Amino acid sequence: MKKSALQKARAAYQPKLPVVLTGAVKAVEGKPTHSVADQDDIKALFPNTYGLPEIQFEKDPNPAKGSTPINVGVILSGGQAPGGHNVISGLFDGIKKINRDSRLYGFLMGPGGFVDHKYVELTSEIIDQFRNTGGFDIIGSGRTKLETKAQFDKGLEILKQLDIKALVIIGGDDSNTNACVLAEYYKQINAGVQVIGCPKTIDGDLKNEVIETSFGFDTATKVYSEVIGNIQRDCNSAKKYWHFIKLMGRSASHIALECALQCQPNVCIISEEVEAKKQTLNDIVNSIADIVAARAANGNNYGTVLIPEGLIEFIPAMKVLIAELNDLLAANAAEFATIEPNNRLSWVADRLSAENAGIFTSLPDGVANQLCLDRDPHGNVQVSLIETEKLLGHMVARRLDQMKSEGRYVGKFAAQFHFFGYEGRCADPSNFDADYCYALGFNASCLIRAGVTGYMSSVRNLTKPSVQWIAGGIPITMMMNMERRHGAMKPVIQKALVTLDGAAFTKFAEQRDSWAINTEFVYPGPIQYFGPAEVCDQCSMTLKYEHAAK
Amino acid sequence: MKKSALQKARAAYQPKLPVVLTGAVKAVEGKPTHSVADQDDIKALFPNTYGLPEIQFEKDPNPAKGSTPINVGVILSGGQAPGGHNVISGLFDGIKKINRDSRLYGFLMGPGGFVDHKYVELTSEIIDQFRNTGGFDIIGSGRTKLETKAQFDKGLEILKQLDIKALVIIGGDDSNTNACVLAEYYKQINAGVQVIGCPKTIDGDLKNEVIETSFGFDTATKVYSEVIGNIQRDCNSAKKYWHFIKLMGRSASHIALECALQCQPNVCIISEEVEAKKQTLNDIVNSIADIVAARAANGNNYGTVLIPEGLIEFIPAMKVLIAELNDLLAANAAEFATIEPNNRLSWVADRLSAENAGIFTSLPDGVANQLCLDRDPHGNVQVSLIETEKLLGHMVARRLDQMKSEGRYVGKFAAQFHFFGYEGRCADPSNFDADYCYALGFNASCLIRAGVTGYMSSVRNLTKPSVQWIAGGIPITMMMNMERRHGAMKPVIQKALVTLDGAAFTKFAEQRDSWAINTEFVYPGPIQYFGPAEVCDQCSMTLKYEHAAK
Repeated sequence: MKKSALQKARAAYQPKLPVVLTGAVKAVEGKPTHSVADQDDIKALFPNTYGLPEIQFEKDPNPAKGSTPINVGVILSGGQAPGGHNVISGLFDGIKKINRDSRLYGFLMGPGGFVDHKYVELTSEIIDQFRNTGGFDIIGSGRTKLETKAQFDKGLEILKQLDIKALVIIGGDDSNTNACVLAEYYKQINAGVQVIGCPKTIDGDLKNEVIETSFGFDTATKVYSEVIGNIQRDCNSAKKYWHFIKLMGRSASHIALECALQCQPNVCIISEEVEAKKQTLNDIVNSIADIVAARAANGNNYGTVLIPEGLIEFIPAMKVLIAELNDLLAANAAEFATIEPNNRLSWVADRLSAENAGIFTSLPDGVANQLCLDRDPHGNVQVSLIETEKLLGHMVARRLDQMKSEGRYVGKFAAQFHFFGYEGRCADPSNFDADYCYALGFNASCLIRAGVTGYMSSVRNLTKPSVQWIAGGIPITMMMNMERRHGAMKPVIQKALVTLDGAAFTKFAEQRDSWAINTEFVYPGPIQYFGPAEVCDQCSMTLKYEHAAK
Repeated sequence: MKKSALQKARAAYQPKLPVVLTGAVKAVEGKPTHSVADQDDIKALFPNTYGLPEIQFEKDPNPAKGSTPINVGVILSGGQAPGGHNVISGLFDGIKKINRDSRLYGFLMGPGGFVDHKYVELTSEIIDQFRNTGGFDIIGSGRTKLETKAQFDKGLEILKQLDIKALVIIGGDDSNTNACVLAEYYKQINAGVQVIGCPKTIDGDLKNEVIETSFGFDTATKVYSEVIGNIQRDCNSAKKYWHFIKLMGRSASHIALECALQCQPNVCIISEEVEAKKQTLNDIVNSIADIVAARAANGNNYGTVLIPEGLIEFIPAMKVLIAELNDLLAANAAEFATIEPNNRLSWVADRLSAENAGIFTSLPDGVANQLCLDRDPHGNVQVSLIETEKLLGHMVARRLDQMKSEGRYVGKFAAQFHFFGYEGRCADPSNFDADYCYALGFNASCLIRAGVTGYMSSVRNLTKPSVQWIAGGIPITMMMNMERRHGAMKPVIQKALVTLDGAAFTKFAEQRDSWAINTEFVYPGPIQYFGPAEVCDQCSMTLKYEHAAK
């Protein structure tokens, strides 16, 4: 592997551990916990892992001498997030500190490798190649869901074979839910295997009162903010384009919100607000067009609009349309397949309810076709394929034409489109994520040594310098509630959406009217690793505002 | 203007001047020069500025005491490039060093501001806000072409009014050509105004024996390489997508080539090679599909493809098709407008020559429609709007289906598409561009003081540390040849395309077969400003290879 100059220089970075984890620790138990909702249901489903206490590590003044080696397995689950390699290197260093003969096994390409017994032993030679790097390529990741007893039993075979006593699953809310189901099962059958989760997702929707942020969010949003800032500077130099920028993040708008706080664009749509206010697509289009017109009145025919990837699914009227489309096309698949391409849209419109037909025919043809044609194996619309940024851009242009004809808009409108996602998921972790991930992994080894299972590795107090961070464990059941999934009620970790009374959104809402009309772009620039602390060691603004509000 | 933490920290950076420019200089003249071609024609067109000697600055051991103040005007012309603000701040510091009462006037929004007398005096308060920042927002840029005597005379009025004795034009090859025409005209009429050019363009196509690189290329390619590297790491972690990545650069593939040298993708198309080898679109598609199939045979259903923005125009067969389309649609505009949308493609195909009809019908419908519908005000196809990355991705998918049916491909193919351009044009300049631009601007002040006109600011020896750079001036006529533009022969600066026997392409060609089949991705990471020199102070690989070959 040929390494870049930065990679070589960055390999020498030693993540700063919370001071409490730098020596021997003892686990201090808090009070028994309960789930955030549906306590009876969750308790019934997790008799062995429900109600456990929170754990906080403290310095142990009288540490026991010596420990036996422990073998640990690790799985990367789901989409990439910057810092995964540091979780693994922290875990590696942690179990080696317990005993130098401890071994770490990485299951390959996600949970599938666990079930199929594909693994590699992670030696220091391998680990050292990946310290402080982005990506999940050290062992790969995958989206296989660990849900069935058959998978759990199959996985247990390889754990027994390798004498693995603890499994660390690095993943998002669903993967951590499954980690807890696995922990419960192994406890129930007395398998003698602990299961520990680590909170990963660039989307930022795995957080709560006790998990301050998921790892990767910090780095990914900094990369997106870098390129958004660069585009804004171009926008403010050329003064002739509106840039519509879609940002990854299906179910929550944390990424768009953080980037807005960093870059101060003219417009940022927050899906959760659209849903709460029951806005239609036209409401959104009109609000953007009004801002374009207001800026044009000041001679400013340029600007930036941030759009969360999942927007379409948050628009109540679009949700209803998509649901009817799914039913209509599933029920009439054979007939629909015979319709001439140029008659398809009218065929569909004729069969929709009046309200949905109205929305459907208001869409640009390209999007309407996409809604009818690009369907997943279950026959559902593939919402993620819809180019929402172009949809909004084209509808805003149409709206502006109308406003111009009514004398309410005088200006020129030309749009450029961007979508950022893959650019940030595997970036080299920021100092924050490098430290946070290393601490999460190292801390996981302390939870393993403490003998617990069904816990998530927790590192808190994150707006403080990393040496002051607080380390411990949170019972995963504590974060759960019951939700309907595929028609049945299931225990799941509650997803953290943007809350409209939250500190980050409030800060945004206070300033956005000014950002819209004035040009108050901020240009964050690229992530820096070696410079002054005020440049290199800052956490996300979301985290700062949320802490300040506490 | 709210500044980011990086912007604040970066404001303190003092660009490192070539040591020769740190004290008083004298201009040492070389031999008279001649143009790279068409000497007689160029000489006839530039009687006053042809044949001037190259100038190199040396330390002046006996400098004259004191100088009178000089007023200078500056124009940013054309697309943004990182470092433009530093050219202006170097120029500002240079003329203030000549005399503290010198004044710098910036014409607003490009050459148009010069013609329309829109300007601002650039004071140290303004300049200090923009040191080491990206963008052209200090005075804006524009694409008005300075070509007519009327413009020159109109501009001269404001120069006289502000007592401006020298004009610095920061632009690409066309803008510098026009700078020279202006220099010639002002000399001819004895206007008493010098004109100096500065080589700007991220495309990297303004370079030659005496101008080693244009500014902005270094930073822009580093930004693109950062995000390409991040995508490659994602690609190598998820192992399930082919990423088709289009890169800005209309007429030359230097950007794609430099990014390939930095990132080692599986495929990089070089337009100049396509043209030289008279490749068809199918040739390109087949060569990519062959690599996809070869990787799939090794179990690797993922990879990266870099595509230069201008590719379509370099494919000889597409050029011929586009030319016939332009003629056909211009001659039959009225009839074409009456054709039903779903009959348009067949209407066009029926009227094209057999060969072009064959190519036209082989294109995906979306692209064929784009070729017919999206036309510029002159009725020409807007090639830049064609989503070449999607065109290639879809055609590769089709080709792979065919190969699969023939048993020559076993694998899964899923593509993601990206286009990077605006992300890099206004990035904060790398240390290289910050230094190079500051030196170009400061050096321009030395050329002004030396009393010359029709020169381009030249800073050379760029692979060495910046203090060792060589500074001087190159007669712009020296870079010119005659080319056909809009039907007439015109004197223009020869555009530097990628040469297939050049050092950078040769290095690429030596390695690409290995990069194609193996996975040898390199991950450059973001531009660093504060770290070790081997990370922060490197010039482009193109420049390194070109120098090493000298």
